[in-house]
Amino acid sequence: MFNIMKNPIGIGILGCGNVGSALVSLLLQEPDEFFIEKIAVQRLDAKRNDYVDTSKLTSDANSVVIDGNVDVVVELIGGTTVAKQLVEVALKNKKPVVTANKELMAKHGFELLALANECGVDLLFEASVCGAIPIVRLLKESLVGEEITRIIGILNGTTNYILTKMSEDNLSFDESLKLAQSLGFAESDPTADISGRDAGAKAAILTSSAFISKVNLDSVYIEGIADITAQDIDFAAKNGLVIKLVSVIEKIRQNGDPDFKISIRVHPVMIVKSHPLASVRNSFNAVFIEGEAIGEMMLYGKGAGGLPTASAVLGDILDAKHNISLRTSNRYTVPKERSILNLDELTNEFYVAVDVADEPGVLAKVAQVFGSNNISIASMEQNGFGHNARLVFFTHGSKELDMKITVAQLSELEVVKKVGSVIRVMAKSQ
Amino acid sequence: MFNIMKNPIGIGILGCGNVGSALVSLLLQEPDEFFIEKIAVQRLDAKRNDYVDTSKLTSDANSVVIDGNVDVVVELIGGTTVAKQLVEVALKNKKPVVTANKELMAKHGFELLALANECGVDLLFEASVCGAIPIVRLLKESLVGEEITRIIGILNGTTNYILTKMSEDNLSFDESLKLAQSLGFAESDPTADISGRDAGAKAAILTSSAFISKVNLDSVYIEGIADITAQDIDFAAKNGLVIKLVSVIEKIRQNGDPDFKISIRVHPVMIVKSHPLASVRNSFNAVFIEGEAIGEMMLYGKGAGGLPTASAVLGDILDAKHNISLRTSNRYTVPKERSILNLDELTNEFYVAVDVADEPGVLAKVAQVFGSNNISIASMEQNGFGHNARLVFFTHGSKELDMKITVAQLSELEVVKKVGSVIRVMAKSQ
Repeated sequence: MFNIMKNPIGIGILGCGNVGSALVSLLLQEPDEFFIEKIAVQRLDAKRNDYVDTSKLTSDANSVVIDGNVDVVVELIGGTTVAKQLVEVALKNKKPVVTANKELMAKHGFELLALANECGVDLLFEASVCGAIPIVRLLKESLVGEEITRIIGILNGTTNYILTKMSEDNLSFDESLKLAQSLGFAESDPTADISGRDAGAKAAILTSSAFISKVNLDSVYIEGIADITAQDIDFAAKNGLVIKLVSVIEKIRQNGDPDFKISIRVHPVMIVKSHPLASVRNSFNAVFIEGEAIGEMMLYGKGAGGLPTASAVLGDILDAKHNISLRTSNRYTVPKERSILNLDELTNEFYVAVDVADEPGVLAKVAQVFGSNNISIASMEQNGFGHNARLVFFTHGSKELDMKITVAQLSELEVVKKVGSVIRVMAKSQ
Repeated sequence: MFNIMKNPIGIGILGCGNVGSALVSLLLQEPDEFFIEKIAVQRLDAKRNDYVDTSKLTSDANSVVIDGNVDVVVELIGGTTVAKQLVEVALKNKKPVVTANKELMAKHGFELLALANECGVDLLFEASVCGAIPIVRLLKESLVGEEITRIIGILNGTTNYILTKMSEDNLSFDESLKLAQSLGFAESDPTADISGRDAGAKAAILTSSAFISKVNLDSVYIEGIADITAQDIDFAAKNGLVIKLVSVIEKIRQNGDPDFKISIRVHPVMIVKSHPLASVRNSFNAVFIEGEAIGEMMLYGKGAGGLPTASAVLGDILDAKHNISLRTSNRYTVPKERSILNLDELTNEFYVAVDVADEPGVLAKVAQVFGSNNISIASMEQNGFGHNARLVFFTHGSKELDMKITVAQLSELEVVKKVGSVIRVMAKSQ
């Protein structure tokens, strides 16, 4: 297909937006290593940076993935339809593919990696999770012999930025979101971020890389940050905690089970300030890994943005180039199908805020509901009086199902106006 | 030399202490991948874990590195004399070597890597810097196309543990050191840690990996933590800062210079609490990397200990195995000789504590010295009165040489009893 001694190698790029232009700028710095053969774009006449050679542009993406001078295809168009077809054609044409496409890898990763195996070429996707953080390579190489037990990730920069602003600058959720939008950290429709769906897709990719497991994404528990209030943030701060939206992926062995199950979930947590994840601020991402031999490890960096993402793409291109020169490619282990552990079966500590009537005997009635569902209260505090009376509880470790029932029963109590936020707590320091 | 399809491969281990035993336990979990052919030890009759097969032990280390059944040699004996000879013999016998030996790599790394190049086999040393943190691989692979501008590392777990205890539990330096020793974090002779020398050796290895630069280790500026006082810690805390011992490696272009110089130094800093490095507590290590495309990135994890270090060794063994199967090896770029920038030329912000006579006009005299040396004071505070009167200053960015002269002149003033701590400040948040 290609000359093994070929240097520089030809790069074909699909898509020339933010990441694509940044990649072009990086590739141009290494003319001995790469030349840009073709760049597929939707609109040939769109305004571009000066350094983008417009004679390389084409609106025919298909011509890029079959071009004889293209040695590595970089897919940056996003989505799961056209992108998928183009990646498939490239692989079948024995061209290694580097992609930054999170949706594609979360939805069709297994199938595409199997195709790459079959075709004997690389499909590399470091940039699809957490931008510049080299988590995929770490899992594939440094930690390949490691028994990973849990991963906790801050995988979405937009929500982390919003929570940071709420917590440090006392902005409301809406104000923080607007600020994020004005700075370009949040899209005009921020639903995928705020709802936790974006973090869920990234968690799915990490699950397959870390646990060689295939799970049904639809059964992942996902809870976003839209309901977090300033009171929650304040109360957390007063107790040495910070609220973060985390993705948790955990290997869980239940008694008697010969094999493990996977718990994968996205939700806000109140995390103790001394935990390394608590200091991940603004739009930064981080992945905290717990393993048998390594103990704890964390990777921290920019999760998005043109240059950081292009830098991850470049790392993968170099990897593909190295493998081309060795006439080899990565082999992907076929993942095992695993069921996701039902959230109800997990044990967590909780923060629960309950708006109540400010009258004698209320606490007893509320506490009775907790107690009758086997939930043990670690501490309680009344915030506000009269119409604004609110009881705030921290619980000891409790079954999720018990908490679900407790919340339902509390809502039925006459003295309870509303069960406000229910937020999981990670109080253990590292 | 070896059968390309050979599986499992034979491992020869030099040294079976803490890391060696942990490595044996990890290798035994993968019998399809590895078998342990021989383990060289100093004392055949020493007490060992049950899982160490004593029939594999030998006191003849040389027999391990020439053994026909050994495909990869793991060097865990430490030091720079016997270890160096054994590594050389192994490489010349075309056996890939994995080492956790920091002294060896800091002192003879260039020469040994050149030999590995010449022999066409791998010399891998991930475990020699920061135990389980995969910083060497990150620099070699993910960041190979990155223009790294600065690395700030917390590379010594003992000193970080001591500083954490002083800061969080109000222990004195001596109490913290004793605690570290009783928990096995510090050696009975902790000089190499406390003085910053250990961090300096690791910084040298990182310099060569990150900047492909060869520097004369003897000219690295190294300052330890023995003089840090409880007052310094308290004053830092009051100002939202934490004291950490850091290794800083920086690419510096001076005006007109076509090529960059390297600044490499080890010293305590007061770092702003919101910086990710500030939350690296206890015996953990971290490497904070700044680069043109990635922005900021940090790796955090255990820097020492049997299992974490063995886990890094295992990652390297797998890498060597992969290369064996491809009949290839890593190629090391010959590093460029570079001069280290003289510390005097650097600019830093400083914290300066000066014990003074508590009498009118003292501040004016002291301030005059700062001013006459072009050092601009950002804030000043008097701590204590009478015999304990102490003036504490934060300066704006100042030339190191100017500060050196200022300290010397202050010490000459009659009203100054003693210039206490002078600590560099990193107040910029991320």
